[in-house]
Amino acid sequence: MQMGMIGLGRMGGNMVKRLREHGHEIVGYDMNPDSGRDVASLEALVGALAAPRVVWVMVPAGKPTESTIAKLGELLEPGDIVVDGGNSKYTEDREHAATLAQRGIGFLDCGVSGGVWGEARGYALMIGGSDEDYERVRPIFEALKPEGDYGLVHAGPVGGGHFAKMVHNGIEYGMMQAFGEGFATMMRSEYVTDPAATMDSWREGSVVASWLLDLFDNATEHDPSLKGVPAVANESGEARWMVEAALELGVPTPATAAALWQRQTSRGGADDILRVVTALRAQFGGHVTKVDEIATH
Amino acid sequence: MQMGMIGLGRMGGNMVKRLREHGHEIVGYDMNPDSGRDVASLEALVGALAAPRVVWVMVPAGKPTESTIAKLGELLEPGDIVVDGGNSKYTEDREHAATLAQRGIGFLDCGVSGGVWGEARGYALMIGGSDEDYERVRPIFEALKPEGDYGLVHAGPVGGGHFAKMVHNGIEYGMMQAFGEGFATMMRSEYVTDPAATMDSWREGSVVASWLLDLFDNATEHDPSLKGVPAVANESGEARWMVEAALELGVPTPATAAALWQRQTSRGGADDILRVVTALRAQFGGHVTKVDEIATH
Repeated sequence: MQMGMIGLGRMGGNMVKRLREHGHEIVGYDMNPDSGRDVASLEALVGALAAPRVVWVMVPAGKPTESTIAKLGELLEPGDIVVDGGNSKYTEDREHAATLAQRGIGFLDCGVSGGVWGEARGYALMIGGSDEDYERVRPIFEALKPEGDYGLVHAGPVGGGHFAKMVHNGIEYGMMQAFGEGFATMMRSEYVTDPAATMDSWREGSVVASWLLDLFDNATEHDPSLKGVPAVANESGEARWMVEAALELGVPTPATAAALWQRQTSRGGADDILRVVTALRAQFGGHVTKVDEIATH
Repeated sequence: MQMGMIGLGRMGGNMVKRLREHGHEIVGYDMNPDSGRDVASLEALVGALAAPRVVWVMVPAGKPTESTIAKLGELLEPGDIVVDGGNSKYTEDREHAATLAQRGIGFLDCGVSGGVWGEARGYALMIGGSDEDYERVRPIFEALKPEGDYGLVHAGPVGGGHFAKMVHNGIEYGMMQAFGEGFATMMRSEYVTDPAATMDSWREGSVVASWLLDLFDNATEHDPSLKGVPAVANESGEARWMVEAALELGVPTPATAAALWQRQTSRGGADDILRVVTALRAQFGGHVTKVDEIATH
């Protein structure tokens, strides 16, 4: 089928390739003239598509997605559908859907997992929106998903796709933290000679066998101690949103929160906490506050 | 090769089947006369094996393993090897090895993952001990492990096998907790219609694809809400040992500890804590301590 793709970066560009390989006719647009875009403006994109149109938005979450959807609300016609495939927060989806619905334009939110491996391996997709809109765009989803029985779910109403993706990423945080804690414990211990090789051995026959463990094998192939990797972890927002949502829902998520907090701590988020602790130790116990002393206790 | 197996329960019995399928000559002994044992005593087991012997101990950790190894120390001869394939704590391995070494008997500790799936799928094995002992028993390990490149590692000196298995299980706790937190968050939310189906969709193409997620699919096939499963989780000890070891080594393991603490809480371990909190709320705020009120906040 025909579809417009807005955003031809790492994710959008690879998705266009996979869609074209599956015989879909994709018209691509990106702000960047060097992106290999087919048209030079949103107006031209809408003009190049036959109604009723499907337009996939694959730009950074927040302002860029916001303004793109607002503009599409002006340019598109009743019966058209907008798909937000970026990492928008699920609460924003309802606003976008409501704005577009005023003009009779449909909306689907789509959480996409797979990263750089998606083009070859297929993308895991989680969709939120009405059954009718979902069925209209389904041929596109079927081309993007991995072959086989898995990798595509109509998770719920508008917001459900990004909610599911948020939870997926929160789980990912917890799993990566769990692997990290195990690796770190073995690294400090005298019992395990080669922690990376030990973890690699778990790739088959063990309960922790997983795609993340396969990636860990790649990551440690030329640097088994990982000493070449900075001990600082960034965050993309989803685990924070998941912990916020879970707090609101009354669901304790201590492992996800621990993973999030470790990343925040690694970026200095706990520095003022630790200054309080160290300052108070010095006050009541006369403890020396030299960094050397702190590092070994 | 020839080997004695002590303990023909769920794990040991299935391992004997797999070893015999691979052409090894196994003499099995179990305390239970209905176990399908080949001999009726430890003495008969040792008598049935040609020196130098290899004897695999596959009985519950703690006292049963302790007394079996002590008895083998009396019955075996210099040059024989004992393999402890149970879930012993890594600190116990050094004691067992030292006792056996006094009589010239070798010792290997072997962490085994795979559970009921191991017979068909192969067992992931983590071995601790000397290179010499490891090479002697290697044909057995090769038969038990899954086919392919993974599933067997000589993790380190004596204790390394059980240390690695302990860390493996600690990681497993964190991963299961992460999946649980995601599932629970979706269960309480209005955004995701079918959390189990959503998680099943992640089995391919997603970053959280894993054997545990495959098992989750099995578990939810006939009970998507899991309401038929008790909300109480037992523990086998390894995560507790890992958190203890990590504390001693100065490695923070908050996600593993969170998973452990959730299980302990589910079994009433936090009841006295919660009584303190509720009693103090009643004292300073005049809060009603009816269970109904507590359950909704």
